Amino acid sequence: MSTTAKLLLHCPDQPGILAQVTNFITVNKGNIVYLDQHVDHSDNIFFMRIEWDLQGFLIPREKIGDYFETLYGQKYQMEFRLYFSDLKPRMAIFVSKMSHCLYDMLARHTAGEWDVDIPLVLSNHPDLRPAAERFGIPFHEFPITKENKESQEEAELKLLRDNGVTFIVLARYMQIVSDKLIEAYPNHIINIHHSFLPAFVGAKPYHAAFQRGVKIIGATSHYVTADLDAGPIIEQDVVRITHKDTVQDLIQKGKDLEKIVLSRAVQKHIDRKVLVYKNKTVIFS
Amino acid sequence: MSTTAKLLLHCPDQPGILAQVTNFITVNKGNIVYLDQHVDHSDNIFFMRIEWDLQGFLIPREKIGDYFETLYGQKYQMEFRLYFSDLKPRMAIFVSKMSHCLYDMLARHTAGEWDVDIPLVLSNHPDLRPAAERFGIPFHEFPITKENKESQEEAELKLLRDNGVTFIVLARYMQIVSDKLIEAYPNHIINIHHSFLPAFVGAKPYHAAFQRGVKIIGATSHYVTADLDAGPIIEQDVVRITHKDTVQDLIQKGKDLEKIVLSRAVQKHIDRKVLVYKNKTVIFS
Amino acid sequence: MSTTAKLLLHCPDQPGILAQVTNFITVNKGNIVYLDQHVDHSDNIFFMRIEWDLQGFLIPREKIGDYFETLYGQKYQMEFRLYFSDLKPRMAIFVSKMSHCLYDMLARHTAGEWDVDIPLVLSNHPDLRPAAERFGIPFHEFPITKENKESQEEAELKLLRDNGVTFIVLARYMQIVSDKLIEAYPNHIINIHHSFLPAFVGAKPYHAAFQRGVKIIGATSHYVTADLDAGPIIEQDVVRITHKDTVQDLIQKGKDLEKIVLSRAVQKHIDRKVLVYKNKTVIFS
Amino acid sequence: MSTTAKLLLHCPDQPGILAQVTNFITVNKGNIVYLDQHVDHSDNIFFMRIEWDLQGFLIPREKIGDYFETLYGQKYQMEFRLYFSDLKPRMAIFVSKMSHCLYDMLARHTAGEWDVDIPLVLSNHPDLRPAAERFGIPFHEFPITKENKESQEEAELKLLRDNGVTFIVLARYMQIVSDKLIEAYPNHIINIHHSFLPAFVGAKPYHAAFQRGVKIIGATSHYVTADLDAGPIIEQDVVRITHKDTVQDLIQKGKDLEKIVLSRAVQKHIDRKVLVYKNKTVIFS
Repeated sequence: MSTTAKLLLHCPDQPGILAQVTNFITVNKGNIVYLDQHVDHSDNIFFMRIEWDLQGFLIPREKIGDYFETLYGQKYQMEFRLYFSDLKPRMAIFVSKMSHCLYDMLARHTAGEWDVDIPLVLSNHPDLRPAAERFGIPFHEFPITKENKESQEEAELKLLRDNGVTFIVLARYMQIVSDKLIEAYPNHIINIHHSFLPAFVGAKPYHAAFQRGVKIIGATSHYVTADLDAGPIIEQDVVRITHKDTVQDLIQKGKDLEKIVLSRAVQKHIDRKVLVYKNKTVIFS
Repeated sequence: MSTTAKLLLHCPDQPGILAQVTNFITVNKGNIVYLDQHVDHSDNIFFMRIEWDLQGFLIPREKIGDYFETLYGQKYQMEFRLYFSDLKPRMAIFVSKMSHCLYDMLARHTAGEWDVDIPLVLSNHPDLRPAAERFGIPFHEFPITKENKESQEEAELKLLRDNGVTFIVLARYMQIVSDKLIEAYPNHIINIHHSFLPAFVGAKPYHAAFQRGVKIIGATSHYVTADLDAGPIIEQDVVRITHKDTVQDLIQKGKDLEKIVLSRAVQKHIDRKVLVYKNKTVIFS
Repeated sequence: MSTTAKLLLHCPDQPGILAQVTNFITVNKGNIVYLDQHVDHSDNIFFMRIEWDLQGFLIPREKIGDYFETLYGQKYQMEFRLYFSDLKPRMAIFVSKMSHCLYDMLARHTAGEWDVDIPLVLSNHPDLRPAAERFGIPFHEFPITKENKESQEEAELKLLRDNGVTFIVLARYMQIVSDKLIEAYPNHIINIHHSFLPAFVGAKPYHAAFQRGVKIIGATSHYVTADLDAGPIIEQDVVRITHKDTVQDLIQKGKDLEKIVLSRAVQKHIDRKVLVYKNKTVIFS
Repeated sequence: MSTTAKLLLHCPDQPGILAQVTNFITVNKGNIVYLDQHVDHSDNIFFMRIEWDLQGFLIPREKIGDYFETLYGQKYQMEFRLYFSDLKPRMAIFVSKMSHCLYDMLARHTAGEWDVDIPLVLSNHPDLRPAAERFGIPFHEFPITKENKESQEEAELKLLRDNGVTFIVLARYMQIVSDKLIEAYPNHIINIHHSFLPAFVGAKPYHAAFQRGVKIIGATSHYVTADLDAGPIIEQDVVRITHKDTVQDLIQKGKDLEKIVLSRAVQKHIDRKVLVYKNKTVIFS
């Protein structure tokens, strides 16, 4: 398969944008292999994701962004991002002690399900070193204390940059990440929260769900923002429980939810199918 | 089918209770047609629902409660309720302006799906009078203002008592019911809240869900307590949404959820399969 | 709200179709309020649904079809259908003895949920006459015997035509409809089958599901074709069951599924969001 | 935690069985930690699973089976199985080329989620050797040809016996297992079939689902019997698809279903919560 360009954009809606953008590609001999668009009629915003084969495309890849900005970006007040399919995203996985999400992702990566590089696993605990190393992924331990938190995060950030990490997955990482890290990876840190947000924000959501007596529990994958558990939601799912389920049962059932919900979100991110707008996500088909 | 007795109980767990209770029925020539039990090992509480055919049962029905209390109730510090299948529960439906839950229940009642009497529909608005009367159910309008709220509720309570109402269903009734009514029908007022509780407590949950950008919406049926939207949950369900759904779409999708979730809860209540303990429900199979 | 035109089309995919069609509308001063498209890359077919406001549109509504056919239809070998929002579809409901789907649809219609006319309910049994008349819908009984089946269907067809019926809903209608009727309403007869098709084709699917010991049951709404239960599927849904459920429980749980699945399919049909291609459906968003 | 005994039984229903069995345990100073029972009223069969702490139990564990058979088994025509929690089941995993189910199970085992031993992974292909060895599980390759099939299965059976294997999991094993193996492990071979059985029996179910145009796909875990894909179903689940999904999308979405459905079934089996009766399963709570 040849290389494709993937363009995600949004701008104030007005007649003709869709026709112009598709024309731009067609006229320049690009074969469109994917198109999805959405208009938010309440905010009057046009959203689009379009992907085309670069083989035979008349504009050199390194100039596509410039041309597009000049021809349409300014005219329509667009914000857009352009990706190329041969440049894989590079994902760092942050973990603490629970292995279910980590194993699920490493197994997908090893099986070739995901078009991603995983240069490193990072943890504040030593426990999951064997898990990472079992799959040949370097494991870096950064124990965190009140005293060293700032310096450790500096070191983490350097490690991420040295490894060309483009996004981070918090796979049940039991540390609140600092604003500095969030600012370095805006809408590029994916967290899995073990509740159906916005229910049960914060610590021990399964205990809280048990206490409240809900009949369904959930998991939520979202981009991390400065507000705890309040970032743009990418994916959620739920599973039914009964009065017979103990807190331990919820934790166990929840694990299966968490890993599936997180992996779906990561897949969408890798496929460049998520666009964040106003603390919400547009998930292209 | 002959009349059955339905016994729901809970008490501190200890060895032999299950054997003793089933023995009590078998020895007295009762044919057990249903049994479900549950032990909450964290609180050490035994829960049970047992149902048996009264045909040939040696103890007269009017004395069963006394005997059971004397033989087991005191001994095991049981709380129990005894029902007979030929005494139908009598349900009052409270509505405001939305008809979907009301129609769903009236259709079930008319089709004979539910073993319940519906002596009346009560509303703070005139809009749904035709809906109730279409199914031959008396409709009572009690407009509520700040000034008349207390006296109107007095009149409502009298009407409920005069009609032998045993439980109340708030079918999208847009008024907060008073503590007086709640005390008159403890754990016998079923509400449908149009969110996945405890997310989006209070007014306009679909607007709040849209605002938050959740990927799934829900509905929750619960017993009404003095705390708004915080009573024991009977049933919940969810439906998936996307960024394409407007608030109106959520409201429309939610309607189907609401009526199904409410009707499932009402059915469980009618079947005497719900036991409330510590602001949570045990839902027998 | 002013009148809109809704155009559904499909044709062999080639570059520029989307741009041309959207241009056609924009250039003629039509305000596009909806657009969804899909390319089936295995069959190389382009599918599209586009809707625009007719207010200020330069082409008179009665000529839009002709113009579109001349300009694009022939050129791209398109098949298309054009609808106007002020021409409501007219739905006939066929029933036998079970009322749950009928009531669900009549309640929606009465509540104004659906933009549809219901000129008549038709049945092979007298049982549901009160249900239809309760909502003010004329009820026509056509008892069917081996001998009269052909003549009765002639009479039915005449009745449907006299009433300008544009599509038919089989709401648990327990008669196989003849090829003649199917040919008169191709892909315009919606059936609800009480199983997760293609599992349990034919009669008594709940009994078959019970016998097989499945852990989930389903319902399927599809267009009726000459092949029994084999037409294009519009919507399906499922509900979980356990070994504790009897056949009667399956039937009861299934009823809730059936009415919701059927109503979702009818809604999609009314909204002109279903396009049939090769015995499958494209369901626009 | 101390050792428990787990007793699963079924017999023709008659009054007093439940009381007698629970009494047997209580009188002999066994502390019941779990009880679930079910009566199939159509076949008049009583099913029960009971678990009790052996600490202080008056009957020595090696004699419990005999005593129970003598006292109740013969009297009530019971079939029962007795397990002890300190004797772990020993699971062999059969695989071919797809790794998702294998990794999911090995990760659970390694994380201590399952109370099971995995002495070996067996395959007809070499591909997944690294996956097994990554988790330290011996991998045995048995290439199958028409000519060697019988002798290879002899060798497999010997290997299974030598390793004390008590049950087998076919984790997308693409070979039909012989009757001999099935007879050696009756209702102890768990398969995952990648469809919502009984829909799409046999090969390439995702292709068939795509062809049929279903809106939901499923996966089914069942015990293997001599009839292909027709054994007792343990667990099923489904996921929604749309017309936008290609066969490849179905395969990918299906993988997540398959591994979760299979793991749920295996967990139930390990926990001794599955009882087979008449080609159906009773799944205890």
